[in-house]
Amino acid sequence: MTDNAYFDLEDFLFKERAEVEKALGRSLKYLDRYLPVGLAKPVRDAVMAGGKRLRPILCALVYRKCGGQIGPAAYDLGVSIELIHTYSLMHDDLPCMDDAQLRRGSPTTHKIYGEEIAVRAGLALIPAASLQAIRAIRELGCDEKISQSILIELNCAAGAGGMVGGQYLDLMAEDLMLDSDKLKNVHRMKTGALLTTSLVMGGLAAYASEDKITGLKKYGRAVGLAFQITDDILDETSSSKDLGKNPSDGLLDKVTYVSIHGVEESMRMARDLSDEAVGVLREAGIESPELNAIARYIVERKL
Amino acid sequence: MTDNAYFDLEDFLFKERAEVEKALGRSLKYLDRYLPVGLAKPVRDAVMAGGKRLRPILCALVYRKCGGQIGPAAYDLGVSIELIHTYSLMHDDLPCMDDAQLRRGSPTTHKIYGEEIAVRAGLALIPAASLQAIRAIRELGCDEKISQSILIELNCAAGAGGMVGGQYLDLMAEDLMLDSDKLKNVHRMKTGALLTTSLVMGGLAAYASEDKITGLKKYGRAVGLAFQITDDILDETSSSKDLGKNPSDGLLDKVTYVSIHGVEESMRMARDLSDEAVGVLREAGIESPELNAIARYIVERKL
Repeated sequence: MTDNAYFDLEDFLFKERAEVEKALGRSLKYLDRYLPVGLAKPVRDAVMAGGKRLRPILCALVYRKCGGQIGPAAYDLGVSIELIHTYSLMHDDLPCMDDAQLRRGSPTTHKIYGEEIAVRAGLALIPAASLQAIRAIRELGCDEKISQSILIELNCAAGAGGMVGGQYLDLMAEDLMLDSDKLKNVHRMKTGALLTTSLVMGGLAAYASEDKITGLKKYGRAVGLAFQITDDILDETSSSKDLGKNPSDGLLDKVTYVSIHGVEESMRMARDLSDEAVGVLREAGIESPELNAIARYIVERKL
Repeated sequence: MTDNAYFDLEDFLFKERAEVEKALGRSLKYLDRYLPVGLAKPVRDAVMAGGKRLRPILCALVYRKCGGQIGPAAYDLGVSIELIHTYSLMHDDLPCMDDAQLRRGSPTTHKIYGEEIAVRAGLALIPAASLQAIRAIRELGCDEKISQSILIELNCAAGAGGMVGGQYLDLMAEDLMLDSDKLKNVHRMKTGALLTTSLVMGGLAAYASEDKITGLKKYGRAVGLAFQITDDILDETSSSKDLGKNPSDGLLDKVTYVSIHGVEESMRMARDLSDEAVGVLREAGIESPELNAIARYIVERKL
């Protein structure tokens, strides 16, 4: 963790989050024309409810690290992924899924607006993410090939290869005892998909080489899995008040890393993945104290 | 209806449907790589369950009428809209919505696979439609500006401006008595959005002039509304066996054109809209006995 000594991650993330919040504001203003007023409000509440904003931060960071010059538009591109992330949280919280009452310390969308509005607000966010990405692609001036690759990445992560597939596997996992390899797949799909997409979309927008894109994918998978394992650990060891959400999977007897490997071993696995992530970036020739520090932060965070 | 005399619509639609079925087969093969096996089967069942296939037929027809040369790819583009249409049927049929047991004479997705799979298969179809459209755009060789316009059209219709907005207004309509103007808006959003999108996407792909695109939009809105009014009339006057689905809205006391205006007046309104549709096409300089016949067919169909 010596690389952290040279870099103030907290300060970096704080400043970056402010950029993301501005981009989210621009996005909601743009999307307002597409949303009936009864859905615009719950969408706005959910999108602006806070959060680490890691996905857009990663997208804009990778864009710059790979030589991209149009900073603000890279946040706009990252926001498209945050919209998919918001949809997934909204639907995960539904009574038919986790039945969560709290998210980031506030009542969940269905608690405020009812289940039917929460379902529809979530559904509206999927095509909204594509509209937002197209808007960002125009600002970035990406060529047609790159634009298509970016939109394919986004829609794969939003679809059955990513979010929906992860939800589906998650659902199966509630009934079946999964072995460690299958569990890894569940987590990689669900969390890793959007993190990796954030990195890859940032790289694509900056016309990064294929080697760099491959390195970013490996980093994303390792960090995504470490992130989810850490979530499992925090769910096991934290109270509802600390998390600002209900500890969920453990209580529902869902199979988690912790339930298979225990807390200590899960922590070791998460740290190994974090080391792996730093290693693959170096190999791909991407020099970024920020990405190294983020790989560390993800397994050391307390929330 | 004299223009029908010169044109065998039934034969035309029969042949066109065969082209659409081939394009749907290509699409499912392409999308298979993105779908977990447990979702691929229900998606395939729902997509291949038949139907009029009007949306892809309209997309490919307009593409040709506006000078487009790459026929098969225009069906592939139209299929992206059919995927959104399939998602909307799947979710409309859910227990929390219409709780329909039958669709096109077969059990609905949730009856066969359960509600949770039906929800997820529907969700997976939204980004799948974008992936399919990008694939078609590549085959058609559209330039970047046109590609973006096509994808914006698709995602607006799939999102809160179209399907989701329509569903939302539909939901409100179950509780509120709507006046005729608001009801028109509900129907225009829900049905008109995808029909109009089919026409506009076909026109855009063929680089149609702005006047022609405007004419297609007006035709689409008129035909879409006529289509929905006719659906209301058929729901009121047909049995479950004839429709291959459950007559729904009337039984649930939802406000429909028929419940406000009665059958006779609703039929007159639908015919007027059909005339209007034929008129706007002529004004826009689009000569198509097929589109004229379709405008007639929509209000005269028995199913």
